[in-house]
Amino acid sequence: MPRTKGDHEARRRDVSEAVWRVLAAHGFGGLTLRAVAAELGATTGLLTHYFPAKRDLVAYALDLLTERTASRPRRAAGDGLAALRAALLDILPLTAEATDSNRIWVSSWDTALADPALSDDHARKYEQSRVRLGELVSAAQRLGELPAGDPARIAAGAQSFVLGLVVQALFNPTAFPPRHQVELLDDYLASLASPTSSGGDHPASA
Amino acid sequence: MPRTKGDHEARRRDVSEAVWRVLAAHGFGGLTLRAVAAELGATTGLLTHYFPAKRDLVAYALDLLTERTASRPRRAAGDGLAALRAALLDILPLTAEATDSNRIWVSSWDTALADPALSDDHARKYEQSRVRLGELVSAAQRLGELPAGDPARIAAGAQSFVLGLVVQALFNPTAFPPRHQVELLDDYLASLASPTSSGGDHPASA
Repeated sequence: MPRTKGDHEARRRDVSEAVWRVLAAHGFGGLTLRAVAAELGATTGLLTHYFPAKRDLVAYALDLLTERTASRPRRAAGDGLAALRAALLDILPLTAEATDSNRIWVSSWDTALADPALSDDHARKYEQSRVRLGELVSAAQRLGELPAGDPARIAAGAQSFVLGLVVQALFNPTAFPPRHQVELLDDYLASLASPTSSGGDHPASA
Repeated sequence: MPRTKGDHEARRRDVSEAVWRVLAAHGFGGLTLRAVAAELGATTGLLTHYFPAKRDLVAYALDLLTERTASRPRRAAGDGLAALRAALLDILPLTAEATDSNRIWVSSWDTALADPALSDDHARKYEQSRVRLGELVSAAQRLGELPAGDPARIAAGAQSFVLGLVVQALFNPTAFPPRHQVELLDDYLASLASPTSSGGDHPASA
């Protein structure tokens, strides 16, 4: 029976789902044709049709991660500090879905750091994210909700804070339940909003 | 010729060095008996004497990481905020050695998140680190250098900030040279030292 385009698309979605479930459970270190085949209830032979080599599977998985991250639902938010807060909350593992996605991101770092091209690609993505956060910082400054200071520098700090919180929450969900993650983020944003936080005055470096 | 205890110790040191170099270059994803053997200029046969299975090699690598992290030189620091700053600077990839060590830590997260026992072990280590940071926060509060607030909560925030900064600096050392990492940390500490930063007042959550 001839395969239709619809069959092909449906199969592709099944493969994506299987790759995603393997990544969420075992990370990139556990991403093998065999594991994906088992998850899919297919033979590894069928999988080699899609992924002739292991690196094809890894590249597919990284594309899938980028695509799902780009298309995930975002919090509606107003302007200024509220929008910055919403963007940072969107990153945190506050739901099962966001936890899977973060777990896969963190797991991708080992693979990415071992490969200069992948590493550059990750660096570019984080840079784009900082640019977006920097625009939100600028808007909050214009509204008088954040004190003056280099928006790029404040965005880099905010990105650092959230990435590190992701890592801690993944390893210790008991110590970092969603409510506590939000509290910690709000502490951080409150400290940004305080007048002495935006450079110039560094008591700690005295 | 009978082997002496000295031979054994020397060989063990060589193996550790080889494992470390493989991890620094290729991460846990690239940690194989073959790679370690190549780095050591030995046969994989010799290596299987030390590591009968892949998981023995991984366990050894994680122990090595813990051991080297525990024994690395620390900045001398006074009390209070200066000591907190020194402890956080000790974590950052400000030297080639600290960069290798951080790169290996970040790489270990994929392996650790895939294994509940390893994941618990990592969670415990981060918890111990937060306890230590919390003691430094308390001391800084007693000296009046940091405002009142739950030391454990402030320590969790500081740990988040530094871990995320590590990740960004590893992916983009050009955008995060040591001087900039220190600036960002000092911005963060300055914001902690400002009066509204320690909970209670959360303009962002309004």
